[in-house]
Amino acid sequence: MCELLGMSANVPTDIAFSFAGLMRRGGQTGPHADGWGITFYEDKGCRAFHDPRPAARSDVAEFVRSHPIKSNIVLCHIRRANRGRVALENTHPFQRELWGRPWSFAHNGQLRGVKRWPLGAHAPIGTTDSEHAFCWLMDALRARFARPPSDRDLAAAVQDLAGQLAGLGVFNMLLSDGRSLFCHCSNRLAWLTRRAPFGPATLVDEDLTVDFARETTPGDVVTVVATRPLTRDEAWTVMEPGSCVVFRQGEAVPLPARRAPRRVAAVRGMAA
Amino acid sequence: MCELLGMSANVPTDIAFSFAGLMRRGGQTGPHADGWGITFYEDKGCRAFHDPRPAARSDVAEFVRSHPIKSNIVLCHIRRANRGRVALENTHPFQRELWGRPWSFAHNGQLRGVKRWPLGAHAPIGTTDSEHAFCWLMDALRARFARPPSDRDLAAAVQDLAGQLAGLGVFNMLLSDGRSLFCHCSNRLAWLTRRAPFGPATLVDEDLTVDFARETTPGDVVTVVATRPLTRDEAWTVMEPGSCVVFRQGEAVPLPARRAPRRVAAVRGMAA
Repeated sequence: MCELLGMSANVPTDIAFSFAGLMRRGGQTGPHADGWGITFYEDKGCRAFHDPRPAARSDVAEFVRSHPIKSNIVLCHIRRANRGRVALENTHPFQRELWGRPWSFAHNGQLRGVKRWPLGAHAPIGTTDSEHAFCWLMDALRARFARPPSDRDLAAAVQDLAGQLAGLGVFNMLLSDGRSLFCHCSNRLAWLTRRAPFGPATLVDEDLTVDFARETTPGDVVTVVATRPLTRDEAWTVMEPGSCVVFRQGEAVPLPARRAPRRVAAVRGMAA
Repeated sequence: MCELLGMSANVPTDIAFSFAGLMRRGGQTGPHADGWGITFYEDKGCRAFHDPRPAARSDVAEFVRSHPIKSNIVLCHIRRANRGRVALENTHPFQRELWGRPWSFAHNGQLRGVKRWPLGAHAPIGTTDSEHAFCWLMDALRARFARPPSDRDLAAAVQDLAGQLAGLGVFNMLLSDGRSLFCHCSNRLAWLTRRAPFGPATLVDEDLTVDFARETTPGDVVTVVATRPLTRDEAWTVMEPGSCVVFRQGEAVPLPARRAPRRVAAVRGMAA
């Protein structure tokens, strides 16, 4: 299984601490050695770094780690290939433009038969079932909305379409249009919102502690989403299978009732 | 005016030498201090680095320079903003997917009134006339060819559409679908093909010489395209205004007669 990491924040924030923990799972503390990628949103644009080499031994990863980029939304993925060979074109996050917004998509899981779902204007560049699913999702959004809908209608549509894809197998997903961070959990996704009063946190994967009280200002709201909790001493919310949650400016936003995310008991000290 | 740099090669080749010269023009030997970007094609995929900061003082540029990435096609652009503020979303090369291929586009010049040309499926993310022109070009290619055409038909179509855009002003362009490097010259674009027997070359912008005989194998064919010749001791071909040239695997490929590129006298020792 691949590892996902996402961030949504109300101020440009660097994700260096969480990234450090995740990258260790790319071929060092974890088996996810088939490449990695990260997308940073900055204002209306975004930039992505991709590398088909293991994250733990990637020069590009070392650069990203040592040159923190401040961003409001981040999507990161480290890959353990199951469909599609190890190659740059099969490395998440994938990107497409829709309504003049740069969309990014990262997925873990498998979707049996998704490649038989017909596509329209969007076509995969690589051979993963994930990129096919993303193209289908972009086509479906364009078919529903010729012009960009309200954030609320968009969130409801993404929730519905993600649910359809999840019917094919395992669909843990991070998706963004640069405004919202959309998350769907099939079986493994957890999140955590940091806000004042900030305290220290210790990574599960590395003997590294950060005191967020020193790194933040009192108004900061920063949510981190990950396949597995990245820290051992914070209260992560483990998402319920089949649920969606949407973050904007670091805060979870209400979703229509049908598939509203229900928070299960916070898990303290969950080990990776 | 912005500076363009392109490469087409028959073997994965690093562009570090030419890149070193170009980056100096980004705010050091040239006035192009409003950001820069580079796209490397690797097999079916590509990766891009963008930075709205001056190239000559960019950490990302220093990383790209010190970690050469081998690629068959490269597009690079350093920007002097005339339309659209200095921001990540306005930084070339722009990228879109069409027919399952990752297209990249970089432009220098201005296109008066292009934003009044209607768009279809592709919409700009930023505010430059360049990105609008690229979206129009992608829409027009999709309208002409529901499925990917032959390389020859595609080259003819790009030549025709680039000519239409050039009617609006200055349109020096690099474009790629990962197979071909399409170049259009309005007033400033030059190219050079290196092949055996290889020799030394000296950068115009930096006191740096490389002996390509040491860096290459006898079968290598590498074409470099640039706004202005990057070396002082090689025979660059300066493109004729209004002409197109298309490179595949490092070689110029024949184009339909109507707008075939005519090579003007090679310019030796042209100064920047």
